[in-house]
Amino acid sequence: MEKSRLERQMHFLIEIDQMKNVLRQTLLADGSRRESDAEHSWHLAMYAMLLAEYAPEPIDVNRVIQMVLVHDLIEIYAGDTFCYDLKGNQDKAEREEAAADKLYALLPADQAAEYRALWEEFDRMDTADSRFAAALDRLQPILNNYLTKGHTWKLGNVKSAQVYERMAPIKNGLPEAWPIVEWIIKESIEQGFLQP
Amino acid sequence: MEKSRLERQMHFLIEIDQMKNVLRQTLLADGSRRESDAEHSWHLAMYAMLLAEYAPEPIDVNRVIQMVLVHDLIEIYAGDTFCYDLKGNQDKAEREEAAADKLYALLPADQAAEYRALWEEFDRMDTADSRFAAALDRLQPILNNYLTKGHTWKLGNVKSAQVYERMAPIKNGLPEAWPIVEWIIKESIEQGFLQP
Repeated sequence: MEKSRLERQMHFLIEIDQMKNVLRQTLLADGSRRESDAEHSWHLAMYAMLLAEYAPEPIDVNRVIQMVLVHDLIEIYAGDTFCYDLKGNQDKAEREEAAADKLYALLPADQAAEYRALWEEFDRMDTADSRFAAALDRLQPILNNYLTKGHTWKLGNVKSAQVYERMAPIKNGLPEAWPIVEWIIKESIEQGFLQP
Repeated sequence: MEKSRLERQMHFLIEIDQMKNVLRQTLLADGSRRESDAEHSWHLAMYAMLLAEYAPEPIDVNRVIQMVLVHDLIEIYAGDTFCYDLKGNQDKAEREEAAADKLYALLPADQAAEYRALWEEFDRMDTADSRFAAALDRLQPILNNYLTKGHTWKLGNVKSAQVYERMAPIKNGLPEAWPIVEWIIKESIEQGFLQP
């Protein structure tokens, strides 16, 4: 028997519970453990609400919130790729496309198309909403990383030039926060959290 | 020196990282561990996006999303009160008011007022948005609870009449899902997850 629309939606909502099991390299701010994708996504949505006023172009904050809520869903099947892992990033796009095909097949076609499009827009960073969302997706981890003494930088043996490159979307998407990034990088080098 | 507006907002965003450390009684769907408030809030926001079409009254889904994202923030200081804990619920309102005073003092006044009002509206359940949000806040845990063989019901030594009472907001806020609730309760009694 074919599933009803509501049954498909409920199945999807149960399936994405697995976002709580996808662990990122970033630690909680208190350093106690790695944060889950679900926690990261919630935190980004809060960043969006709180910092929307600083977007340098007109944005639709509600679209940004929905975008950050769904932007990592494909990691349920594709896993979280550490941003400083060169090898893992080589086949990232391919793995994530396959994951999206599998995940969004669960949903009614209209909702599948809507949320998949939001994720693709996030990845392209070619709209005001996605540039702002990408900036938040860089700002949240650098703060937690600084508060945990450069945990992920040490893991990845990362140099400051790589961090500047990784953080570049903040310069366009949330320029008001760029001085915070510069301060964190400078301070982290001085304190030995990050290689110059 | 007084903190700038952006500094206050960043401080708040770091403070609420603690939502990842507030553990609920509800387990992840796979039963592996308790879910955090941050994870629960993210999951409710996804429920809101996916199920908005079933709201029996006109709702603003984006307000509902923001409401569920902030509805548990006060638990950073007040802790999560187990819904079937009679004693803990006696002073819940008082503890949560004090927590809200402390938490929202961190934010600029305009944002503090906006998010505190959303939380208060959620608790009052006296608008279409908050009735829908409350229904989601009942539906997500009952699903995870059923999938984990009635874990929280066993903890609280709960009887089916208590579950019917706890789930009542779904009848008004998301009536389309009420048959799911009835099915879960019936099935859980049969399987010994819940006392009749």
